[in-house]
Amino acid sequence: MFSPLIKELIESLRCLPGVGPKSAQKMALYLLERDSQGADRLAEALRHALDKVGRCSQCRTLTEDTLCHICADEGRNNKRLCIVETPADVIAIESTKQFDGLYFVLMGHLSPIDGIGPDELGLDRLDALSDHQGVEEVIIATNSTVEGEATCHYIAQILKPKGIDVSRIAQGVPMGGELEYVDGNTLALALEGRKKL
Amino acid sequence: MFSPLIKELIESLRCLPGVGPKSAQKMALYLLERDSQGADRLAEALRHALDKVGRCSQCRTLTEDTLCHICADEGRNNKRLCIVETPADVIAIESTKQFDGLYFVLMGHLSPIDGIGPDELGLDRLDALSDHQGVEEVIIATNSTVEGEATCHYIAQILKPKGIDVSRIAQGVPMGGELEYVDGNTLALALEGRKKL
Repeated sequence: MFSPLIKELIESLRCLPGVGPKSAQKMALYLLERDSQGADRLAEALRHALDKVGRCSQCRTLTEDTLCHICADEGRNNKRLCIVETPADVIAIESTKQFDGLYFVLMGHLSPIDGIGPDELGLDRLDALSDHQGVEEVIIATNSTVEGEATCHYIAQILKPKGIDVSRIAQGVPMGGELEYVDGNTLALALEGRKKL
Repeated sequence: MFSPLIKELIESLRCLPGVGPKSAQKMALYLLERDSQGADRLAEALRHALDKVGRCSQCRTLTEDTLCHICADEGRNNKRLCIVETPADVIAIESTKQFDGLYFVLMGHLSPIDGIGPDELGLDRLDALSDHQGVEEVIIATNSTVEGEATCHYIAQILKPKGIDVSRIAQGVPMGGELEYVDGNTLALALEGRKKL
């Protein structure tokens, strides 16, 4: 029903996560009818980001520089490393202001079915990095999912023989969580991980 | 926390309707991490649509051609005109397959507070079009909102003196609607618009 260029815009908006055919149509018409300036800015931003953004040569997070601003910050403790799955996880941990070390971003988790093995996660580079920099402590903060756990165990097996202090972030009842509404598996982990008072 | 180009991409995604800061961050990281091809296609589609898509010279809908495919279709009845607010409304009415005439797209509704008057809605062109083409029937299908109603009455006042048969789409209980859950205003309209059996 729409002309070919509008159809193509609607179709291409569907690559965005969480955007179905109806939202894509709404977005395309909104941009063309009411916000061509915003559309122009978006097209430019996409083009620039695609052209320039790559991976940090040390921690693998997304950045347009050789080293991301965290790896480049000399004030941070480079003996501590926190391993996460995605750049968004770095932001989440940074927002707690509780970690002063560096990160290593896997950009995913082990998933043999999707062809994602140790090489795709840059584990060879993690290996080299931990030797080279004399890392003393590694906190593994992969997601609390089956894949995240498997990835965590795999990484721990690589790092522990080097005498590195490897830990996993705690699993249990979230802050403000009422036991009545917490699922059984979480509760089981919370019981297992109980701390002496 | 993100590098400047990524920040700019997140910011510019927020021009999309219904996209807040969290979704914009998710979209930007998704595109950069996993779908650079989709991002490339989107940037191209935006660029092409911005450069080429304009208004149909007759009905004012969005199209990259001089005449949209409906106005260009000689098989349609050009004595009947349906007036709608947006291009999406054209699609909605076309999907019923109950209308064989042409459309006129206002691209909004009268809203003096936003500076949208008769000129912005192209009512001068509607006036000329109805004279020139010898339109005999006009169906006003603006939204069933205060602004849509006001716009409808304004247009009816222009067209009725020309002897054109002007009508408004029916308002009432939607198909499958249970009276218990239909709001009072709709029910009042349904009563007022009752049809003899």
